[in-house]
Amino acid sequence: METKSLNKSHGGTQGVYSHVSESCHCPMTFAVFVPPHTQGQKLPVLWYLSGLTCTHANVMEKGEYRKAASEHGIIIVCPDTSPRGEGVADDSGNWKLGCGAGFYVDATEEPWSPHYKMYSYVNSELPQLVAEQFPADMQRQSIFGHSMGGHGALISALRQPDRFRSCSAFSPIVYPMTADWSRPALAAYLGPDEKSWRRWDSVALIEDGARVPELLVDQGLADQFLEDGLRPKLLKAACDKAGIKLALRMHEGYDHSYYFISTFMADHVAWHAERLKRK
Amino acid sequence: METKSLNKSHGGTQGVYSHVSESCHCPMTFAVFVPPHTQGQKLPVLWYLSGLTCTHANVMEKGEYRKAASEHGIIIVCPDTSPRGEGVADDSGNWKLGCGAGFYVDATEEPWSPHYKMYSYVNSELPQLVAEQFPADMQRQSIFGHSMGGHGALISALRQPDRFRSCSAFSPIVYPMTADWSRPALAAYLGPDEKSWRRWDSVALIEDGARVPELLVDQGLADQFLEDGLRPKLLKAACDKAGIKLALRMHEGYDHSYYFISTFMADHVAWHAERLKRK
Repeated sequence: METKSLNKSHGGTQGVYSHVSESCHCPMTFAVFVPPHTQGQKLPVLWYLSGLTCTHANVMEKGEYRKAASEHGIIIVCPDTSPRGEGVADDSGNWKLGCGAGFYVDATEEPWSPHYKMYSYVNSELPQLVAEQFPADMQRQSIFGHSMGGHGALISALRQPDRFRSCSAFSPIVYPMTADWSRPALAAYLGPDEKSWRRWDSVALIEDGARVPELLVDQGLADQFLEDGLRPKLLKAACDKAGIKLALRMHEGYDHSYYFISTFMADHVAWHAERLKRK
Repeated sequence: METKSLNKSHGGTQGVYSHVSESCHCPMTFAVFVPPHTQGQKLPVLWYLSGLTCTHANVMEKGEYRKAASEHGIIIVCPDTSPRGEGVADDSGNWKLGCGAGFYVDATEEPWSPHYKMYSYVNSELPQLVAEQFPADMQRQSIFGHSMGGHGALISALRQPDRFRSCSAFSPIVYPMTADWSRPALAAYLGPDEKSWRRWDSVALIEDGARVPELLVDQGLADQFLEDGLRPKLLKAACDKAGIKLALRMHEGYDHSYYFISTFMADHVAWHAERLKRK
């Protein structure tokens, strides 16, 4: 692991690191904020998965999470959204496929399958590295994300209910296999058999029996993607039917941007902190 | 005035606007955050001047000021740092002169003088536009800034003690006429007679009799520009001699970046709010 930058902020350290990923077969960059802590202390870990077109840097610069993370004593890890670099397949000019659009799946289809293993990267490889390199208590992990990263957080939590204490999302893509803007990516990464997509889709996972006790979702009502890409009401319906307690909060006037995310960031960190600190 | 973007954030509205500046003879872009307020209410105005290489966007994206501005009910205005565009003189490749480096002076020398009138722009033209277009109480104004913008804030307050209720700065350039990294810009904009520079220099202004009751300055001890460009101890010495109450706070481990600024942003907004709300 190589340290790219370290900046003191809100009493802790915002770092950016890179390493050669075995899952994605390319160098990957990620950000970790470590709040102030005493020598030897192990801290809970909150994962933030970013949306389409983002790298680790968008939320690190615009997310306003450090004050809350320091107050609650939580490490926040922000991975990239896809493999990148020479030799990595891409669909340049298409922001919904390829670089910046990994959709947190493990691709099975050429030309994507050699590199696009973002689910394994985020859920297996990177946690192991974080456990080795940072003062992290891996028995206390939670996850959240935005848009495509909200989708990534939801499927990660639904598939690993024992790993994460809690899961929340800002404007998540809740049912990507039925949304026009995500179907082409799932078809490219996973092939034409839509049954194989269901493991990578929150609503489908819930329909197929996956359970978590509760979820928190914030959504802006002025979000231009609300009615076609995101459709949180479909998550609400699935949760209601499955007995999952979903707090779905709709916010007048807010759009899809980090101006929205940063507004509710401290709320989410506090919500996770409460669950991460329960005995 | 043209509206470039509007985003709801922390209950208020973050806007970006452009207009053709009469002072700078070019289109200028600026950001204004208006917190939640009642119809007809007039709000105090806090000016934030940015540092070298920045536009209005750096602090808007990374400064973490909106939560505090909303809590205290303060408008925050973030101008650009220089004129820009076709026909505007520049020294490309030199980040300490020309575009992004206006130093908040009114240039008297060619080729800079036709456009580089940032002092007049920030202190006369833009306030008039803000008064016309926003719910601003211009009887209650304060100012702060970072680095070159800290210099801009200090000279603006020292030259107009009746206009601003309060002035603070993050890592300001306090004595630009004696610092190697700012002397070339002052020479270019103002000509070789250094006596004419003294009106544009905080320490010189104080030596020459300018007074404000108090100042707040935060400075990181890991700032790479601390000992050559910034040198806050020189401001401290001038303030002590002049009877100006300067709260100079030195912070272990912090550098010159927005990771530092954002850490102390809420403190500064609260400090100004207290002074803006006094009867």
